[in-house]
Amino acid sequence: MKTLVVYSGGIDSTVLLYDVVASGDRAAAISFNYGQRHVRELDAARAICADLGVEHRIVSLTELSQLLTGSSLTDPSIEVPDGHYTDSTMKATVVPNRNMIMLSIAIGWGLSSGAERVAYAAHGGDHAIYPDCRPEFVYAMQKAAALCDWNEIELSAPFVGITKADIVRRGMELSVPFEKTWSCYKGGEQHCGRCGTCTERREAFELAGVEDPTTYQEPVLDKT
Amino acid sequence: MKTLVVYSGGIDSTVLLYDVVASGDRAAAISFNYGQRHVRELDAARAICADLGVEHRIVSLTELSQLLTGSSLTDPSIEVPDGHYTDSTMKATVVPNRNMIMLSIAIGWGLSSGAERVAYAAHGGDHAIYPDCRPEFVYAMQKAAALCDWNEIELSAPFVGITKADIVRRGMELSVPFEKTWSCYKGGEQHCGRCGTCTERREAFELAGVEDPTTYQEPVLDKT
Repeated sequence: MKTLVVYSGGIDSTVLLYDVVASGDRAAAISFNYGQRHVRELDAARAICADLGVEHRIVSLTELSQLLTGSSLTDPSIEVPDGHYTDSTMKATVVPNRNMIMLSIAIGWGLSSGAERVAYAAHGGDHAIYPDCRPEFVYAMQKAAALCDWNEIELSAPFVGITKADIVRRGMELSVPFEKTWSCYKGGEQHCGRCGTCTERREAFELAGVEDPTTYQEPVLDKT
Repeated sequence: MKTLVVYSGGIDSTVLLYDVVASGDRAAAISFNYGQRHVRELDAARAICADLGVEHRIVSLTELSQLLTGSSLTDPSIEVPDGHYTDSTMKATVVPNRNMIMLSIAIGWGLSSGAERVAYAAHGGDHAIYPDCRPEFVYAMQKAAALCDWNEIELSAPFVGITKADIVRRGMELSVPFEKTWSCYKGGEQHCGRCGTCTERREAFELAGVEDPTTYQEPVLDKT
Protein backbone atom coordinates (compact mmCIF):
# COMPACT_ATOMS: atom_id res chain seq x y z
CA MET A 1 0.00 0.00 0.00
CA LYS A 2 1.35 3.42 -0.91
CA THR A 3 0.14 6.38 1.15
CA LEU A 4 0.68 10.01 0.28
CA VAL A 5 0.79 12.36 3.25
CA VAL A 6 -0.21 16.01 2.95
CA TYR A 7 2.70 17.38 4.87
CA SER A 8 3.21 20.82 6.43
CA GLY A 9 6.26 20.15 8.61
CA GLY A 10 4.20 20.76 11.77
CA ILE A 11 3.63 18.35 14.63
CA ASP A 12 0.40 16.74 13.42
CA SER A 13 1.45 15.83 9.91
CA THR A 14 4.93 14.79 11.08
CA VAL A 15 3.39 12.31 13.52
CA LEU A 16 1.11 11.12 10.72
CA LEU A 17 4.08 10.63 8.41
CA TYR A 18 5.96 8.66 11.06
CA ASP A 19 2.82 6.63 11.68
CA VAL A 20 2.52 5.71 8.01
CA VAL A 21 6.20 4.76 7.82
CA ALA A 22 5.87 2.69 11.03
CA SER A 23 2.84 0.86 9.61
CA GLY A 24 5.02 -0.52 6.83
CA ASP A 25 3.17 1.39 4.09
CA ARG A 26 5.23 2.98 1.38
CA ALA A 27 5.07 6.68 2.21
CA ALA A 28 5.49 9.83 0.13
CA ALA A 29 4.87 13.42 1.17
CA ILE A 30 3.50 16.49 -0.57
CA SER A 31 3.84 20.05 0.73
CA PHE A 32 2.52 23.34 -0.57
CA ASN A 33 3.94 26.80 -0.85
CA TYR A 34 0.78 28.91 -0.99
CA GLY A 35 2.45 32.16 -0.05
CA GLN A 36 2.18 31.43 3.68
CA ARG A 37 3.98 33.81 6.01
CA HIS A 38 5.51 30.79 7.77
CA VAL A 39 7.01 29.30 4.62
CA ARG A 40 9.89 28.13 6.77
CA GLU A 41 7.67 25.22 7.79
CA LEU A 42 8.66 23.81 4.39
CA ASP A 43 12.32 23.70 5.44
CA ALA A 44 11.24 21.59 8.39
CA ALA A 45 9.24 19.34 6.06
CA ARG A 46 12.16 18.96 3.67
CA ALA A 47 14.64 18.09 6.43
CA ILE A 48 12.37 15.54 8.10
CA CYS A 49 11.56 13.79 4.81
CA ALA A 50 15.29 13.62 4.05
CA ASP A 51 15.91 12.05 7.48
CA LEU A 52 13.20 9.48 6.84
CA GLY A 53 14.27 8.84 3.25
CA VAL A 54 10.73 9.62 2.09
CA GLU A 55 9.98 11.01 -1.37
CA HIS A 56 8.87 14.62 -0.99
CA ARG A 57 7.39 17.08 -3.46
CA ILE A 58 6.79 20.77 -2.78
CA VAL A 59 4.16 22.30 -5.02
CA SER A 60 4.32 26.04 -5.59
CA LEU A 61 0.91 27.71 -5.50
CA THR A 62 2.16 31.17 -4.62
CA GLU A 63 0.11 32.70 -7.39
CA LEU A 64 -3.00 31.61 -5.51
CA SER A 65 -2.29 34.00 -2.66
CA GLN A 66 -3.64 36.73 -4.95
CA LEU A 67 -6.91 34.83 -5.29
CA LEU A 68 -7.31 33.45 -1.77
CA THR A 69 -7.30 36.75 0.05
CA GLY A 70 -8.53 37.75 3.49
CA SER A 71 -6.25 35.51 5.59
CA SER A 72 -3.47 36.70 7.87
CA LEU A 73 -1.43 33.71 6.74
CA THR A 74 -1.12 34.97 3.18
CA ASP A 75 -1.85 38.69 3.38
CA PRO A 76 1.00 40.69 4.96
CA SER A 77 -1.41 43.55 5.73
CA ILE A 78 -3.46 41.38 8.13
CA GLU A 79 -1.76 40.65 11.45
CA VAL A 80 -1.52 37.10 12.85
CA PRO A 81 -3.61 37.24 16.04
CA ASP A 82 -2.14 36.29 19.40
CA GLY A 83 -4.23 34.21 21.77
CA HIS A 84 -5.70 30.76 22.13
CA TYR A 85 -6.06 28.53 19.11
CA THR A 86 -9.80 28.22 19.64
CA ASP A 87 -10.48 31.96 20.05
CA SER A 88 -12.77 33.24 17.35
CA THR A 89 -10.14 35.83 16.42
CA MET A 90 -8.15 32.91 15.02
CA LYS A 91 -10.58 32.77 12.12
CA ALA A 92 -8.34 35.44 10.57
CA THR A 93 -5.94 32.58 9.86
CA VAL A 94 -8.38 30.63 7.69
CA VAL A 95 -7.19 30.44 4.06
CA PRO A 96 -10.32 29.99 1.93
CA ASN A 97 -10.67 26.36 0.88
CA ARG A 98 -7.01 25.58 1.52
CA ASN A 99 -7.57 21.96 2.46
CA MET A 100 -9.74 21.08 -0.52
CA ILE A 101 -7.13 22.59 -2.83
CA MET A 102 -4.25 20.71 -1.19
CA LEU A 103 -6.20 17.45 -1.02
CA SER A 104 -7.31 17.67 -4.64
CA ILE A 105 -3.73 18.06 -5.87
CA ALA A 106 -2.51 15.32 -3.55
CA ILE A 107 -5.25 13.01 -4.86
CA GLY A 108 -4.26 13.85 -8.45
CA TRP A 109 -0.64 13.03 -7.75
CA GLY A 110 -1.70 9.91 -5.85
CA LEU A 111 -3.69 8.68 -8.85
CA SER A 112 -0.78 9.40 -11.19
CA SER A 113 1.82 7.76 -9.00
CA GLY A 114 -0.05 4.62 -7.99
CA ALA A 115 -0.86 5.56 -4.39
CA GLU A 116 -3.91 3.87 -2.90
CA ARG A 117 -4.38 6.41 -0.12
CA VAL A 118 -3.99 10.10 0.65
CA ALA A 119 -3.80 11.02 4.33
CA TYR A 120 -4.02 14.37 6.10
CA ALA A 121 -3.69 15.32 9.72
CA ALA A 122 -6.81 17.36 10.56
CA HIS A 123 -7.54 16.78 14.25
CA GLY A 124 -10.27 17.32 16.82
CA GLY A 125 -8.89 20.65 18.05
CA ASP A 126 -9.00 22.17 14.57
CA HIS A 127 -12.77 22.02 14.16
CA ALA A 128 -13.61 25.15 16.13
CA ILE A 129 -11.69 27.39 13.74
CA TYR A 130 -11.09 25.50 10.51
CA PRO A 131 -14.25 24.39 8.73
CA ASP A 132 -12.22 22.21 6.38
CA CYS A 133 -11.00 20.06 9.28
CA ARG A 134 -14.49 19.04 10.41
CA PRO A 135 -15.44 15.35 10.19
CA GLU A 136 -18.39 16.14 7.92
CA PHE A 137 -16.05 17.89 5.47
CA VAL A 138 -13.75 14.88 5.59
CA TYR A 139 -16.65 12.52 4.81
CA ALA A 140 -17.73 14.59 1.81
CA MET A 141 -14.16 14.66 0.49
CA GLN A 142 -13.80 10.91 1.01
CA LYS A 143 -16.83 10.41 -1.18
CA ALA A 144 -15.51 12.79 -3.83
CA ALA A 145 -12.09 11.11 -3.77
CA ALA A 146 -13.68 7.73 -4.34
CA LEU A 147 -15.54 9.03 -7.40
CA CYS A 148 -13.08 11.40 -9.07
CA ASP A 149 -11.33 8.71 -11.10
CA TRP A 150 -11.95 5.22 -12.50
CA ASN A 151 -9.39 3.99 -9.97
CA GLU A 152 -10.58 4.46 -6.42
CA ILE A 153 -8.33 6.33 -4.05
CA GLU A 154 -8.95 6.45 -0.32
CA LEU A 155 -8.81 9.65 1.68
CA SER A 156 -7.86 9.15 5.30
CA ALA A 157 -7.90 11.60 8.23
CA PRO A 158 -7.00 9.29 11.13
CA PHE A 159 -6.62 12.10 13.69
CA VAL A 160 -9.98 13.75 13.08
CA GLY A 161 -11.42 12.40 16.33
CA ILE A 162 -8.42 12.88 18.63
CA THR A 163 -6.72 15.88 20.22
CA LYS A 164 -3.32 17.41 19.57
CA ALA A 165 -2.20 16.13 23.00
CA ASP A 166 -3.08 12.60 21.84
CA ILE A 167 -1.03 13.23 18.71
CA VAL A 168 1.95 14.35 20.79
CA ARG A 169 1.66 11.16 22.86
CA ARG A 170 1.55 9.08 19.70
CA GLY A 171 4.58 11.00 18.43
CA MET A 172 6.49 10.13 21.59
CA GLU A 173 5.82 6.44 20.99
CA LEU A 174 7.15 6.85 17.46
CA SER A 175 10.24 8.88 18.53
CA VAL A 176 9.21 11.83 16.37
CA PRO A 177 11.91 14.56 16.45
CA PHE A 178 9.53 17.29 17.65
CA GLU A 179 12.36 19.81 17.81
CA LYS A 180 12.62 19.69 14.03
CA THR A 181 8.93 20.48 13.43
CA TRP A 182 7.59 23.97 12.84
CA SER A 183 4.24 25.44 13.96
CA CYS A 184 4.46 29.22 14.43
CA TYR A 185 2.28 31.19 12.00
CA LYS A 186 4.49 34.24 12.30
CA GLY A 187 7.39 32.43 10.66
CA GLY A 188 10.20 34.24 12.52
CA GLU A 189 13.57 32.85 13.54
CA GLN A 190 12.07 31.13 16.57
CA HIS A 191 8.55 30.11 17.54
CA CYS A 192 6.89 33.29 18.85
CA GLY A 193 5.13 31.47 21.69
CA ARG A 194 2.05 33.70 21.52
CA CYS A 195 0.17 33.15 18.29
CA GLY A 196 -2.68 30.67 18.21
CA THR A 197 -0.69 27.79 16.88
CA CYS A 198 2.23 28.36 19.30
CA THR A 199 -0.24 28.45 22.18
CA GLU A 200 -1.78 25.21 20.96
CA ARG A 201 1.66 23.61 20.56
CA ARG A 202 2.72 24.48 24.10
CA GLU A 203 -0.58 23.33 25.53
CA ALA A 204 -0.45 20.01 23.69
CA PHE A 205 2.94 19.11 25.17
CA GLU A 206 1.73 20.14 28.61
CA LEU A 207 -1.48 18.11 28.38
CA ALA A 208 0.39 15.14 26.99
CA GLY A 209 2.92 15.27 29.80
CA VAL A 210 5.72 15.39 27.28
CA GLU A 211 8.68 17.73 27.54
CA ASP A 212 8.45 20.52 24.97
CA PRO A 213 11.79 20.87 23.17
CA THR A 214 10.76 24.11 21.43
CA THR A 215 12.57 27.40 22.01
CA TYR A 216 9.97 30.16 22.22
CA GLN A 217 10.66 33.89 21.99
CA GLU A 218 8.13 34.46 24.76
CA PRO A 219 8.74 31.78 27.33
CA VAL A 220 5.68 32.68 29.40
CA LEU A 221 2.21 33.38 28.06
CA ASP A 222 1.27 37.03 28.21
CA LYS A 223 -1.66 37.23 30.63
CA THR A 224 -2.33 40.98 30.27
CA MET B 1 -26.02 36.77 -6.73
CA LYS B 2 -22.49 36.43 -8.01
CA THR B 3 -21.61 33.29 -9.94
CA LEU B 4 -18.11 32.18 -10.85
CA VAL B 5 -17.89 30.05 -13.97
CA VAL B 6 -15.08 27.53 -14.45
CA TYR B 7 -14.30 28.47 -18.00
CA SER B 8 -12.32 26.61 -20.64
CA GLY B 9 -13.24 28.60 -23.75
CA GLY B 10 -15.05 25.58 -25.21
CA ILE B 11 -18.69 25.34 -26.24
CA ASP B 12 -20.13 24.02 -22.97
CA SER B 13 -18.63 26.52 -20.56
CA THR B 14 -19.20 29.39 -23.01
CA VAL B 15 -22.92 28.59 -23.17
CA LEU B 16 -22.90 28.35 -19.37
CA LEU B 17 -21.23 31.74 -19.08
CA TYR B 18 -23.76 33.29 -21.46
CA ASP B 19 -26.54 31.62 -19.49
CA VAL B 20 -25.31 33.12 -16.21
CA VAL B 21 -25.01 36.57 -17.78
CA ALA B 22 -28.50 36.25 -19.30
CA SER B 23 -29.95 35.27 -15.92
CA GLY B 24 -28.95 38.65 -14.52
CA ASP B 25 -26.39 37.16 -12.10
CA ARG B 26 -23.09 38.95 -11.74
CA ALA B 27 -20.65 36.65 -13.56
CA ALA B 28 -16.92 36.14 -13.33
CA ALA B 29 -14.81 33.47 -15.02
CA ILE B 30 -11.79 31.45 -14.02
CA SER B 31 -9.60 29.47 -16.42
CA PHE B 32 -6.63 27.20 -15.85
CA ASN B 33 -3.36 26.69 -17.62
CA TYR B 34 -2.44 23.18 -16.50
CA GLY B 35 0.05 22.56 -19.28
CA GLN B 36 -2.65 21.41 -21.69
CA ARG B 37 -1.61 20.84 -25.28
CA HIS B 38 -4.57 22.95 -26.40
CA VAL B 39 -3.61 25.98 -24.32
CA ARG B 40 -4.98 28.09 -27.14
CA GLU B 41 -8.42 27.45 -25.66
CA LEU B 42 -7.41 30.14 -23.16
CA ASP B 43 -7.11 32.71 -25.94
CA ALA B 44 -10.70 31.91 -26.84
CA ALA B 45 -11.71 32.25 -23.18
CA ARG B 46 -9.94 35.59 -22.86
CA ALA B 47 -11.50 37.04 -26.02
CA ILE B 48 -15.03 35.94 -25.14
CA CYS B 49 -14.80 37.33 -21.61
CA ALA B 50 -13.54 40.63 -23.02
CA ASP B 51 -16.52 40.73 -25.42
CA LEU B 52 -18.90 40.10 -22.53
CA GLY B 53 -17.16 42.51 -20.18
CA VAL B 54 -16.82 39.70 -17.63
CA GLU B 55 -13.99 39.61 -15.07
CA HIS B 56 -11.63 36.78 -16.02
CA ARG B 57 -8.70 35.22 -14.18
CA ILE B 58 -6.32 32.67 -15.65
CA VAL B 59 -4.55 30.58 -13.02
CA SER B 60 -1.25 29.03 -13.98
CA LEU B 61 -0.86 25.47 -12.75
CA THR B 62 1.71 24.40 -15.31
CA GLU B 63 3.93 22.97 -12.60
CA LEU B 64 1.22 20.41 -11.93
CA SER B 65 1.72 18.78 -15.31
CA GLN B 66 4.79 17.13 -13.78
CA LEU B 67 2.61 15.60 -11.05
CA LEU B 68 -0.51 14.76 -13.03
CA THR B 69 1.10 12.49 -15.56
CA GLY B 70 -0.33 9.85 -17.83
CA SER B 71 -2.66 12.03 -19.89
CA SER B 72 -2.28 12.84 -23.57
CA LEU B 73 -3.49 16.36 -22.80
CA THR B 74 -0.45 17.21 -20.71
CA ASP B 75 2.20 14.68 -21.76
CA PRO B 76 3.64 15.39 -25.23
CA SER B 77 4.84 11.79 -25.49
CA ILE B 78 1.27 10.42 -25.41
CA GLU B 79 -0.71 10.98 -28.59
CA VAL B 80 -4.20 12.48 -28.56
CA PRO B 81 -6.41 9.65 -29.86
CA ASP B 82 -8.64 10.11 -32.90
CA GLY B 83 -12.14 8.68 -32.80
CA HIS B 84 -15.45 9.13 -31.09
CA TYR B 85 -15.62 11.02 -27.81
CA THR B 86 -17.15 8.03 -26.01
CA ASP B 87 -14.57 5.47 -27.27
CA SER B 88 -12.66 3.94 -24.40
CA THR B 89 -9.41 5.03 -26.08
CA MET B 90 -10.43 8.57 -25.10
CA LYS B 91 -9.58 7.72 -21.52
CA ALA B 92 -6.01 8.67 -22.49
CA THR B 93 -7.27 12.26 -22.31
CA VAL B 94 -8.24 12.06 -18.62
CA VAL B 95 -6.07 14.35 -16.45
CA PRO B 96 -6.08 12.83 -12.95
CA ASN B 97 -8.48 14.75 -10.71
CA ARG B 98 -8.48 17.81 -12.95
CA ASN B 99 -12.01 18.85 -12.09
CA MET B 100 -11.61 18.61 -8.31
CA ILE B 101 -8.46 20.73 -8.55
CA MET B 102 -10.11 23.38 -10.72
CA LEU B 103 -13.30 23.43 -8.64
CA SER B 104 -11.41 23.71 -5.35
CA ILE B 105 -9.47 26.75 -6.54
CA ALA B 106 -12.62 28.29 -8.02
CA ILE B 107 -14.44 27.74 -4.71
CA GLY B 108 -11.53 29.35 -2.83
CA TRP B 109 -11.63 32.40 -5.09
CA GLY B 110 -15.42 32.45 -4.85
CA LEU B 111 -15.25 32.55 -1.05
CA SER B 112 -12.63 35.29 -1.14
CA SER B 113 -14.45 37.43 -3.66
CA GLY B 114 -17.97 37.16 -2.30
CA ALA B 115 -19.44 34.82 -4.90
CA GLU B 116 -22.39 32.73 -3.78
CA ARG B 117 -22.04 30.11 -6.50
CA VAL B 118 -19.45 28.30 -8.58
CA ALA B 119 -20.72 26.71 -11.79
CA TYR B 120 -19.11 24.24 -14.16
CA ALA B 121 -20.27 22.77 -17.41
CA ALA B 122 -19.94 18.98 -17.03
CA HIS B 123 -22.62 17.42 -19.23
CA GLY B 124 -24.32 14.10 -19.87
CA GLY B 125 -22.01 13.08 -22.71
CA ASP B 126 -18.92 13.45 -20.53
CA HIS B 127 -19.78 10.68 -18.09
CA ALA B 128 -18.61 7.77 -20.19
CA ILE B 129 -15.01 8.97 -20.24
CA TYR B 130 -14.56 11.52 -17.46
CA PRO B 131 -15.28 10.19 -13.97
CA ASP B 132 -15.19 13.71 -12.56
CA CYS B 133 -18.15 14.74 -14.68
CA ARG B 134 -20.51 12.10 -13.25
CA PRO B 135 -23.56 13.27 -11.30
CA GLU B 136 -22.43 11.34 -8.20
CA PHE B 137 -19.10 13.16 -8.26
CA VAL B 138 -20.95 16.46 -8.58
CA TYR B 139 -23.13 15.61 -5.57
CA ALA B 140 -20.11 14.77 -3.40
CA MET B 141 -18.40 18.00 -4.40
CA GLN B 142 -21.56 19.99 -3.71
CA LYS B 143 -21.55 18.61 -0.18
CA ALA B 144 -17.84 19.38 0.27
CA ALA B 145 -18.33 22.91 -1.10
CA ALA B 146 -21.12 23.55 1.39
CA LEU B 147 -18.86 22.48 4.30
CA CYS B 148 -15.43 23.82 3.36
CA ASP B 149 -15.99 27.27 4.87
CA TRP B 150 -18.14 29.01 7.48
CA ASN B 151 -19.83 30.77 4.57
CA GLU B 152 -21.72 28.36 2.37
CA ILE B 153 -20.97 28.39 -1.31
CA GLU B 154 -23.09 26.55 -3.83
CA LEU B 155 -21.64 24.35 -6.53
CA SER B 156 -23.77 24.09 -9.62
CA ALA B 157 -23.49 21.82 -12.66
CA PRO B 158 -26.66 22.68 -14.55
CA PHE B 159 -25.78 20.69 -17.69
CA VAL B 160 -24.99 17.42 -15.94
CA GLY B 161 -28.24 15.83 -17.13
CA ILE B 162 -28.36 17.16 -20.71
CA THR B 163 -26.41 16.45 -23.89
CA LYS B 164 -23.99 18.60 -25.80
CA ALA B 165 -26.59 18.94 -28.56
CA ASP B 166 -28.97 20.42 -25.97
CA ILE B 167 -26.20 22.82 -24.96
CA VAL B 168 -25.71 23.90 -28.57
CA ARG B 169 -29.43 24.56 -28.90
CA ARG B 170 -29.37 26.63 -25.71
CA GLY B 171 -26.36 28.47 -27.08
CA MET B 172 -28.31 29.34 -30.21
CA GLU B 173 -31.07 30.88 -28.12
CA LEU B 174 -28.44 32.95 -26.32
CA SER B 175 -26.63 33.99 -29.55
CA VAL B 176 -23.38 32.45 -28.38
CA PRO B 177 -20.57 33.18 -30.88
CA PHE B 178 -19.69 29.51 -31.42
CA GLU B 179 -17.06 30.43 -33.99
CA LYS B 180 -14.98 31.99 -31.22
CA THR B 181 -14.97 28.88 -29.01
CA TRP B 182 -12.22 26.27 -29.04
CA SER B 183 -12.56 22.50 -28.54
CA CYS B 184 -9.76 20.60 -30.33
CA TYR B 185 -7.44 18.74 -27.95
CA LYS B 186 -4.61 18.86 -30.47
CA GLY B 187 -4.40 22.63 -30.20
CA GLY B 188 -3.26 23.30 -33.78
CA GLU B 189 -4.05 26.31 -35.94
CA GLN B 190 -7.47 24.93 -36.82
CA HIS B 191 -9.73 22.32 -35.26
CA CYS B 192 -8.37 18.96 -36.44
CA GLY B 193 -11.84 17.48 -36.96
CA ARG B 194 -10.78 13.99 -35.91
CA CYS B 195 -9.92 13.91 -32.23
CA GLY B 196 -12.58 12.93 -29.72
CA THR B 197 -13.60 16.42 -28.82
CA CYS B 198 -13.72 17.59 -32.46
CA THR B 199 -15.90 14.59 -33.31
CA GLU B 200 -18.17 15.42 -30.42
CA ARG B 201 -18.32 19.08 -31.45
CA ARG B 202 -19.32 18.25 -35.02
CA GLU B 203 -21.88 15.73 -33.89
CA ALA B 204 -23.45 18.14 -31.40
CA PHE B 205 -24.10 20.77 -34.09
CA GLU B 206 -25.51 18.10 -36.39
CA LEU B 207 -27.82 16.66 -33.74
CA ALA B 208 -28.92 20.12 -32.66
CA GLY B 209 -29.72 21.08 -36.26
CA VAL B 210 -27.50 24.13 -35.93
CA GLU B 211 -25.03 25.19 -38.59
CA ASP B 212 -21.46 24.49 -37.47
CA PRO B 213 -19.32 27.59 -38.08
CA THR B 214 -16.06 25.73 -37.32
CA THR B 215 -13.30 25.32 -39.91
CA TYR B 216 -11.92 21.80 -39.60
CA GLN B 217 -8.68 20.56 -41.12
CA GLU B 218 -10.41 17.30 -41.97
CA PRO B 219 -13.80 18.24 -43.34
CA VAL B 220 -14.99 14.63 -43.58
CA LEU B 221 -14.59 11.98 -40.91
CA ASP B 222 -12.06 9.34 -41.82
CA LYS B 223 -14.01 6.10 -42.10
CA THR B 224 -11.03 3.83 -42.77
